[in-house]
Amino acid sequence: MKRNFRELLEARWSKGCFVCVGLDSEWGKIPERFGSADVTECMLSFNKWVIDQTHDIVCCYKPNLAFYLAEGIPGLLALQLTVRHILDTAPGIPVILDAKWADIGNTNEGYVKMAFDYLQTDAVTVHPYLGREALEPFLKHADKGVFVLCKTSNPGAGEFQDAHCEHNTLSQAVADHVSEQWNANGNCGLVVGATYPVDLQDIRGLVGDDIPLLIPGIGAQGGDLERTVKAGKNSRGTGIIINSSRGIIFAPDPRAETKKLNDSITSFL
Amino acid sequence: MKRNFRELLEARWSKGCFVCVGLDSEWGKIPERFGSADVTECMLSFNKWVIDQTHDIVCCYKPNLAFYLAEGIPGLLALQLTVRHILDTAPGIPVILDAKWADIGNTNEGYVKMAFDYLQTDAVTVHPYLGREALEPFLKHADKGVFVLCKTSNPGAGEFQDAHCEHNTLSQAVADHVSEQWNANGNCGLVVGATYPVDLQDIRGLVGDDIPLLIPGIGAQGGDLERTVKAGKNSRGTGIIINSSRGIIFAPDPRAETKKLNDSITSFL
Repeated sequence: MKRNFRELLEARWSKGCFVCVGLDSEWGKIPERFGSADVTECMLSFNKWVIDQTHDIVCCYKPNLAFYLAEGIPGLLALQLTVRHILDTAPGIPVILDAKWADIGNTNEGYVKMAFDYLQTDAVTVHPYLGREALEPFLKHADKGVFVLCKTSNPGAGEFQDAHCEHNTLSQAVADHVSEQWNANGNCGLVVGATYPVDLQDIRGLVGDDIPLLIPGIGAQGGDLERTVKAGKNSRGTGIIINSSRGIIFAPDPRAETKKLNDSITSFL
Repeated sequence: MKRNFRELLEARWSKGCFVCVGLDSEWGKIPERFGSADVTECMLSFNKWVIDQTHDIVCCYKPNLAFYLAEGIPGLLALQLTVRHILDTAPGIPVILDAKWADIGNTNEGYVKMAFDYLQTDAVTVHPYLGREALEPFLKHADKGVFVLCKTSNPGAGEFQDAHCEHNTLSQAVADHVSEQWNANGNCGLVVGATYPVDLQDIRGLVGDDIPLLIPGIGAQGGDLERTVKAGKNSRGTGIIINSSRGIIFAPDPRAETKKLNDSITSFL
């Protein structure tokens, strides 16, 4: 059966699941009991431990490519086997590859091949800087999700994203272009950091109900959950994917952390 | 001996070498005589063939990560062995990893580890969208080059890059921030497409003599060489790295193509 990112996502929302577990499984931070001699085995067994105890209560998984490429080939193998484990054991859970890619069009075809054919992930994150034309190799895959960076969660995000470009800020211009012009296949989303709840509210207002917002920045980065949920949700009480990475995977009990976070989210919807 | 990107680059310029050979070695386009059963062996032997016949006349090599990740682990291994081959057989030639990365700060440390420790490349390309604060893990490496996307070569580049942000366009704002604020270690460069010679001239004027410009877009993408060289060079008759990828590596005689291109460039300086 062909996987469709948006259908998988809607199914998770309909079950009341809004937490995206960020599999930022930095090798040096993985507890020793998962092994340390073999990088692939260590990262994979750690990820399996997180996945196996959380998959029935999560919205998505989101491995960030950087933590895997940092370990070279053993890291990439761990990523590949992690995605395969999710597809095999929790096929209802969509996998977002957080790669923040964007090159010119023909080059993006290489990244498409890596994300959608080789790894078989359901969605990717991309930079808006090169514009829609360059991102068409991603956007044309109607069954895959494409999350465009809009307002990022880092402290210095505003350097360009807050610049006033014509009638609005650059991040608002990105939100506007994505919802009005890039979303012909209904497969676009936006990345908006919980650390900027005013922007989050503005952006939800700009794009209406149908654009999913992938929201990093709660937990370690300090975003306030109640403000985030109230600013980011759509009028149907869905539309948000709240990411937590380090706060869940490196907790003593990832399942309890996931459940606690999801309960808090649903209490604010 | 510790490698320093800027010193290697200046040494190549002083020898009159301005061509960056883009090792965009798309597996499906490599001629059959390089083998096809084993992806790694095919990509590596093709790259060695290009490198061994051109290294004395090039400015830099620039493998684009997308074409290697497209083939998964065998592709990443080919990239690793290609970089090692350059370091071993042509140690005077700097290697730019064209990865167009940019994530939040702590995540960028993973990409730094991949580019500078694992692969041992001398420079990377990055997106400006998250601002300087997020890119500090790259910028702090004074011996490594950091090329920030400024005006890209693709037809749709202007969608955001030409937006008027306060006193200038977004691409001009990027050029200004990079040269005025990001370049404390003297290791920044800008990526400016040959397909936009007016922007190229404006940006060289904005940043002065000391920022190297990495210029894709001649050849297959259609940029005019004479206009590009005259618009991009600094007052010392250097400052430009003119990239050609497909036009060189898939030519019947890559050395002849490289020499022809470099001769044309130097004739316009």
